[in-house]
Amino acid sequence: MSKLLKVGVIGLGFFGGRHARIYADHPAAELIAVCDSDPERTALVARQTGAQGFNDLHALLALAELDAVSICLPDRLHEDAAIGAAVAGKAILLEKPLAHDSATAHRIVAAVEENGARLMIGHILRFDPRYVQTFQAAATEKLGAPIHLRAKRNGIRATAKRLGSSSSILFYMGVHDVDAMQWIARSRINRVYAQKVELLGTGNEDALYAVVNFENGAIGNIDYSWAWPDGLMNGFRSSLEIVGTKSAAYLDCIDQGFYVVEEDGTSGGDTHLWPEINGRIAGDLADEIDHFVKATLSDTPYVQHYREALDAIPVLDALAQSAQTGVPVEVVRERPEQ
Amino acid sequence: MSKLLKVGVIGLGFFGGRHARIYADHPAAELIAVCDSDPERTALVARQTGAQGFNDLHALLALAELDAVSICLPDRLHEDAAIGAAVAGKAILLEKPLAHDSATAHRIVAAVEENGARLMIGHILRFDPRYVQTFQAAATEKLGAPIHLRAKRNGIRATAKRLGSSSSILFYMGVHDVDAMQWIARSRINRVYAQKVELLGTGNEDALYAVVNFENGAIGNIDYSWAWPDGLMNGFRSSLEIVGTKSAAYLDCIDQGFYVVEEDGTSGGDTHLWPEINGRIAGDLADEIDHFVKATLSDTPYVQHYREALDAIPVLDALAQSAQTGVPVEVVRERPEQ
Amino acid sequence: MSKLLKVGVIGLGFFGGRHARIYADHPAAELIAVCDSDPERTALVARQTGAQGFNDLHALLALAELDAVSICLPDRLHEDAAIGAAVAGKAILLEKPLAHDSATAHRIVAAVEENGARLMIGHILRFDPRYVQTFQAAATEKLGAPIHLRAKRNGIRATAKRLGSSSSILFYMGVHDVDAMQWIARSRINRVYAQKVELLGTGNEDALYAVVNFENGAIGNIDYSWAWPDGLMNGFRSSLEIVGTKSAAYLDCIDQGFYVVEEDGTSGGDTHLWPEINGRIAGDLADEIDHFVKATLSDTPYVQHYREALDAIPVLDALAQSAQTGVPVEVVRERPEQ
Amino acid sequence: MSKLLKVGVIGLGFFGGRHARIYADHPAAELIAVCDSDPERTALVARQTGAQGFNDLHALLALAELDAVSICLPDRLHEDAAIGAAVAGKAILLEKPLAHDSATAHRIVAAVEENGARLMIGHILRFDPRYVQTFQAAATEKLGAPIHLRAKRNGIRATAKRLGSSSSILFYMGVHDVDAMQWIARSRINRVYAQKVELLGTGNEDALYAVVNFENGAIGNIDYSWAWPDGLMNGFRSSLEIVGTKSAAYLDCIDQGFYVVEEDGTSGGDTHLWPEINGRIAGDLADEIDHFVKATLSDTPYVQHYREALDAIPVLDALAQSAQTGVPVEVVRERPEQ
Repeated sequence: MSKLLKVGVIGLGFFGGRHARIYADHPAAELIAVCDSDPERTALVARQTGAQGFNDLHALLALAELDAVSICLPDRLHEDAAIGAAVAGKAILLEKPLAHDSATAHRIVAAVEENGARLMIGHILRFDPRYVQTFQAAATEKLGAPIHLRAKRNGIRATAKRLGSSSSILFYMGVHDVDAMQWIARSRINRVYAQKVELLGTGNEDALYAVVNFENGAIGNIDYSWAWPDGLMNGFRSSLEIVGTKSAAYLDCIDQGFYVVEEDGTSGGDTHLWPEINGRIAGDLADEIDHFVKATLSDTPYVQHYREALDAIPVLDALAQSAQTGVPVEVVRERPEQ
Repeated sequence: MSKLLKVGVIGLGFFGGRHARIYADHPAAELIAVCDSDPERTALVARQTGAQGFNDLHALLALAELDAVSICLPDRLHEDAAIGAAVAGKAILLEKPLAHDSATAHRIVAAVEENGARLMIGHILRFDPRYVQTFQAAATEKLGAPIHLRAKRNGIRATAKRLGSSSSILFYMGVHDVDAMQWIARSRINRVYAQKVELLGTGNEDALYAVVNFENGAIGNIDYSWAWPDGLMNGFRSSLEIVGTKSAAYLDCIDQGFYVVEEDGTSGGDTHLWPEINGRIAGDLADEIDHFVKATLSDTPYVQHYREALDAIPVLDALAQSAQTGVPVEVVRERPEQ
Repeated sequence: MSKLLKVGVIGLGFFGGRHARIYADHPAAELIAVCDSDPERTALVARQTGAQGFNDLHALLALAELDAVSICLPDRLHEDAAIGAAVAGKAILLEKPLAHDSATAHRIVAAVEENGARLMIGHILRFDPRYVQTFQAAATEKLGAPIHLRAKRNGIRATAKRLGSSSSILFYMGVHDVDAMQWIARSRINRVYAQKVELLGTGNEDALYAVVNFENGAIGNIDYSWAWPDGLMNGFRSSLEIVGTKSAAYLDCIDQGFYVVEEDGTSGGDTHLWPEINGRIAGDLADEIDHFVKATLSDTPYVQHYREALDAIPVLDALAQSAQTGVPVEVVRERPEQ
Repeated sequence: MSKLLKVGVIGLGFFGGRHARIYADHPAAELIAVCDSDPERTALVARQTGAQGFNDLHALLALAELDAVSICLPDRLHEDAAIGAAVAGKAILLEKPLAHDSATAHRIVAAVEENGARLMIGHILRFDPRYVQTFQAAATEKLGAPIHLRAKRNGIRATAKRLGSSSSILFYMGVHDVDAMQWIARSRINRVYAQKVELLGTGNEDALYAVVNFENGAIGNIDYSWAWPDGLMNGFRSSLEIVGTKSAAYLDCIDQGFYVVEEDGTSGGDTHLWPEINGRIAGDLADEIDHFVKATLSDTPYVQHYREALDAIPVLDALAQSAQTGVPVEVVRERPEQ
């Protein structure tokens, strides 16, 4: 490859800051613009990376030389930025979830398709060796027909408190596993039943448990929580397993392989998602962005089509509705105007 | 203690054979009678233990000097043996489940109460250090109010094939966790939703997933399977976790701490349930029987009252009904004619 | 069995208190006497167990009806108590190590043999399912010839500080693994090289590493430390592995299968050594004492002959000497007056 | 960055093939030449990558436009290739170990320095998040003074058989941990004692255990084996721990977080070293090569200076000598004629 991808990052929080650093380190990318509504944050990242700073995302999107953007905004702000980027014809790396409800997701997708833009959703598990190898092991010729799948994603209550009403357990954490389960099962979820509980008063649900059905006959079990006390080793616990008629595969992200022992306790550290190695960010997030840069430059398909990402949103809607009503809910996937 | 408890064992399969060996080794018990419908099996165990052999359980129960019996028969044969023992006034250690449905369970309990007999159900998890310590850690003053509980019990498909229609995933495996969850949560399950799947053709369900509600407001997640390929390390995977408003506790029985590596693979072994140590059976089952012997001799309460064991049966019924009908089911616990 | 074993416990610290409780709960034992140099401690345990309290161990040993004693004193006080018990003709359960040096160990053994007393050393690993199953898996017909063995026993610095100069890393912790390695390898250690380090100023070595040779040609690796910060999960880490020409086996005691999560960290708990279960002490220590009671009553051999326990002491002496001198040391096992 | 690094790969076995694929995928590198003594292997990789194929490494090194080479040859062939590349002024990524003995290592280093070439040794652990985070956690201000370090690297006997006399347990596996221990301890090993065993007849040692001393007073424990039966889960076990006066850190590579269960057993898979993700090789090796490409292009220092890699070689020599002679050996690090 010889051309450099000129990129901008919109939203400079936890994820946006990491996107900016990874682009700045990538030999096929040139980070030319960053944007955050907080001027100080913008100035800081601009100084660190040498990119031009913006406080208005539409000003950033107006840069003619810009090829691509990462959008790392809170869920409810995805629509304006994503549609703006689509209209401007940029390649878009949109942090998950695609949107905070089905209607918005469809509007974003419509804008992308109408404007001939490119769109990749930041489903990082598609770049995690543990999830990818489980996906590979679940190929039909190895696994046979899927019988049951279970996915767990549990975090600490500090996260729920910090996010308050800006996100929800389903859209912040749950989208990872709904996407992963449908991807690994090679089938879509078509019926759900969920129960939730709210005792901690964080402004969010504490936990949501669900049983789901797949189109291919498999059953699924979902276990979401951010009610764990903040002293939880590593701060989160995620796992996934799939059992088929011929074999089974599972992954477990609890053990990260690294521990620190101090006078007052034992703690761990991230060795997969975005570990800091020799001054750069390595791991799954760096591999995701590497893929976005290369596939955009070479005009080849992203590893996941956005239509497949879209398939997760109505499942989240159905889970929310079932948790609200207490009865099983069918997943509705009608396409707008179709 | 000075008196010996004179005991008999009815049913000499996997569990009955172990009960007999443990009694024969126990300094406060005297194994005087064993019974199985298979004369060869009976003769073998009688010879090994020095006990008198029977092929008719009612003949065994007619022994006047007999103080107590272990009943280790298939689920559907519990009623005849348990009621017979109750009528004969014996102390009864009845292998779980209490019965294969609520109506039978209530008839057994009625016979026990009418005849002033004693009854303990073989809920072995009540003697497993991992479950007992989780129960202790979940005391209200430590845990606060329970928010969510998850229980898993997964085995291999060879077990499902072997049992065929003589048991079910709920009554063979599920009773363990329904009892454990209600015990550890200090609350009863009052509503359930379940889905099951049958693809392997073993004559049994392959797996059952459920979401449940507790009277105290907590939610529960149940994960039962015996669809795992037979090469599953250790042959089973069980775990349980409870998160409360103040703290959380969890146990995991996957790692048994012992492994063997051979040319063709790595396998494990049981170090908790009934490990063979220096010629005797140690572990949870031995501790359970030790408790039965001592509490019977000293006429003190068993660690679990049978009425509490009874509370698991209607939950199993409701889970079966929900898995059958596809809708949530309320747990009905009316007592017969009372 | 019908007779009760009348027992006394000498030394009522951490281990002695547990011995007393376990005897008091054992149906074939009658705890009739307890002894500690601290009158308050003696009075407390006497009151809790109903046993007679002594402050002078020789007064306790003078009880004619006493059949057996547990000696749970600091290492350097073993000689007086053990020889006294031997002269009095009691069956002795002597907490490990047999003695704090070879000469003392031989004097104790001589007294036992001259007086026709019985002696069992409290090598608890011989009753731990993980170690026993590794021993079983290492049978020659399964394992082939042993190639290499590694043993680890690591604890926290609080232990080293607490013990100060009353014990040493070799005699307090190391004796477990030297005995276990020789037992599992079916061979004795005949040459050692060790290095130690003392930086923490606890009054004890911080750590000792060694490479050893077995008579059968295998090599061994020893890893002892009590330098870990006090926040070490579960407070200790022990493991052992053996690789042979045909297969291999290993055990790992780090994961205990039970965890508690609080706001400030995740911690574990003991589920094997002496867990408190339903008001009694279960686990390895209870099984060890059960064996002592039964084998003493039935006059059958203890699972380990004291001569085999004796084989560990000169290895500890050689390790200490090598760590002191910095050169490899041959293990000398001459018997006194032979 | 705008310039592309023109690279060649010498040796196209397991590692060379991976180097070639990673360069071919790297946006800042252009793989222009590959070389192997096996013409078929060369032709295959040339066809797959579009690079020019060579069977003579000196012909490859004669390419004027070539900026850099990866040398992935057997240990004993390092000298000719590395000195040739140094003389030709190429930047060199030399797969570990630097050389198979000290004298050769010094000749390679001398050639690099005389010719003003650049040299990086492929110490992959310097790019493994588990090792790097342990290094970071062992910074003096966090750890205090190191007290003891233990490193383990164990593999299966199939590897020893495959390599035969072409490598040794010390140079094939051991160099990883000697380098890692010195790096993480911030100190060099200056005295060693080792024992080895050879029972399997693979043409290689089965195992080597050692105790070492560091210049800063810490002690070290080394555990190398490739005697494990081939059924060992994941095929290898490596770990490292360091305990200091203030805190401790450890890593364990046994659990890779991913498992497959089939009818005849449970197995794992690599999720860190060089996992295949979405058609490319990700993980530690890809990060190592990314660093080599970027630091070479930008003319900035490699993360490890080759002089530091050189420090491992005399330790390996001393370990070999001690294992041969049975006595402790001082590490000699005199520089040749300097």
